[in-house]
Amino acid sequence: MKRRSFLTGAGTAAIAAAAMPAPAVAQGKRQLKMVTTWPKNYPGLGVSAERLATRIRDMTDGQIDIKVYAAGELVPALESFDTVSSGAADIYHGAEYYWQGKSKAFNFFTAVPFGMTAAEINGWIYHGGGQELWDGLSKGFNIKPLMTANTGVQLAGWYRNEIKSLDDLKGLKIRMPGLGGEVMRRLGAAAVTLAGPDIFPALQNGTIDAAEWVAPWNDMAFGFYRIAKFYYWPGFHEPGSSLAAGFNLSVWESFTKPQQAIVRAACAAENDYTLAEYTHHNGRALKTLVDEHGVQMRKFPDDVLAALKKASREVLEDAAKSDAATAKIYESFREALAISEEWTRIGDEGFVEARRG
Amino acid sequence: MKRRSFLTGAGTAAIAAAAMPAPAVAQGKRQLKMVTTWPKNYPGLGVSAERLATRIRDMTDGQIDIKVYAAGELVPALESFDTVSSGAADIYHGAEYYWQGKSKAFNFFTAVPFGMTAAEINGWIYHGGGQELWDGLSKGFNIKPLMTANTGVQLAGWYRNEIKSLDDLKGLKIRMPGLGGEVMRRLGAAAVTLAGPDIFPALQNGTIDAAEWVAPWNDMAFGFYRIAKFYYWPGFHEPGSSLAAGFNLSVWESFTKPQQAIVRAACAAENDYTLAEYTHHNGRALKTLVDEHGVQMRKFPDDVLAALKKASREVLEDAAKSDAATAKIYESFREALAISEEWTRIGDEGFVEARRG
Repeated sequence: MKRRSFLTGAGTAAIAAAAMPAPAVAQGKRQLKMVTTWPKNYPGLGVSAERLATRIRDMTDGQIDIKVYAAGELVPALESFDTVSSGAADIYHGAEYYWQGKSKAFNFFTAVPFGMTAAEINGWIYHGGGQELWDGLSKGFNIKPLMTANTGVQLAGWYRNEIKSLDDLKGLKIRMPGLGGEVMRRLGAAAVTLAGPDIFPALQNGTIDAAEWVAPWNDMAFGFYRIAKFYYWPGFHEPGSSLAAGFNLSVWESFTKPQQAIVRAACAAENDYTLAEYTHHNGRALKTLVDEHGVQMRKFPDDVLAALKKASREVLEDAAKSDAATAKIYESFREALAISEEWTRIGDEGFVEARRG
Repeated sequence: MKRRSFLTGAGTAAIAAAAMPAPAVAQGKRQLKMVTTWPKNYPGLGVSAERLATRIRDMTDGQIDIKVYAAGELVPALESFDTVSSGAADIYHGAEYYWQGKSKAFNFFTAVPFGMTAAEINGWIYHGGGQELWDGLSKGFNIKPLMTANTGVQLAGWYRNEIKSLDDLKGLKIRMPGLGGEVMRRLGAAAVTLAGPDIFPALQNGTIDAAEWVAPWNDMAFGFYRIAKFYYWPGFHEPGSSLAAGFNLSVWESFTKPQQAIVRAACAAENDYTLAEYTHHNGRALKTLVDEHGVQMRKFPDDVLAALKKASREVLEDAAKSDAATAKIYESFREALAISEEWTRIGDEGFVEARRG
């Protein structure tokens, strides 16, 4: 081709296209995989994972396009962590306490019995050194973690029969996983772990006598009120469950500075948005459960609460002995909790008490 | 110039530059002005306004570059709304109740006496129809509002003398602005409004007997404990103050879809981050005030609380009568509060009560 013809007509466009950067939208566009520990379209958390992907896609103008997989679609829920750690998927969305088999320390980044409220755990993670400790723990598994949702306080579950004293916990077959379940076991209950969809049938056929899941909004959807009429509070075992997005560390580090800022803000925005969502919908669901489904709200008796509290402290202290990372994280957690506790009492509790008084 | 020479050398680059879009970073880069109602570098809210600008700058890779003006730098704090409404500035960062002279309805988007906690107001705004009502109200003033910070619950202030009964409020000269001040006036107090920096001297020289400002973290910085030793709770007047970013409507509509998504997420992220910040630092400051400065925490007596509650309801009902927009917004607010109240009681309060029990 002669130079002259090369510089005319279609040739000019070809030079221009080669010489100039492509429009941003086509430059370095990435498709990432997010595995989750939630059923497809699960209200609250599953929907939040989808919304997180949408926020990031919208903010990056499609540059980061995340496909969300429900539990079991790519890997089973509890394999999410290893899948992202190895790089077979890029991001997980789940509850850190699911990985307590790796280290008991992960419990503190979701919720522990008689632990922190949502505002308190956010205070610890964002402002009290929690994020740095968490980064250090997760880095050992090739993961960068961020808070991305919070359910707020949960309730203590659905019981076929009333709990009138500590004796009623002896031999009680209850679905309560994690450290909350361990607390129940120390008081003589037979605590078991069941996946969400397996709880209703187990309650129905009498395999279990009681079950905790989340709180009114999510619990109503599973229909537990059809079998067990006593709905117990307070939710001693999970006072403000924080859910995490975990990024494969190489993927996280490959993000540009603007992309990292976008991902951080998207996760924090969802952290805010989900707590608000649970607060609003739990209120509506609680009213429906009581007014339309005849559910009876019950508070644990004082002796039961005192025993739960004592056992909870022992369970946390035993967990702290399991490895050095957990000991260090428990120490930071306990110090932050001690400080926020008194403020929460005269601040939040003080107000709510006066409002209903 | 002949066609041939035009198509060679420098000419080619000129064509290319004209024909292709410029790199995204240089395309449509904008400088915007944010006026705020906070002093320069004011801990919590002033710093959050700066951080909001930084987040947006980082996420847009410098495309939206917001310069933040402290109160008085460009216009006085209380002129921020009009300045953005007219387009003389692009964004304000402040408390909606400062604009209650435009409509009493604005109070409901910050905080009202015996109103909503932070989680509850977030629930109403994000999920209970609050944002739509707020958009409608602000649109009349050429503004698009978003929540961008929350202080959490405040305290009822600093008193030179103890409040032992309702009689002690009669004639009390107290700094308490807005609807909280109106409640105090109905109980016989002489409530006045003073800007932050004017409060300490007024307490010191006896012009006022008492003053509320925010909560331990911000209050400690102002040194009120040096004059008034009694620090009262609960913070009936502001149970969870929401702060807003207001965008000139034409500016908001000129943002691209990715830019709008970025600004929404940045505001929601700050909403999450600030509540956590106040929670953490209020706990630390409360401990310092009590342990090191001999501050005495006091709860209002029951008869005072009952009277405050009754007067608060009357103040809100009177506000609702002031215009049709306020009536409609109060109705929605009241319905959302009625629903979340019972959940907050057995959820959040139930847990915190058990934890300290």
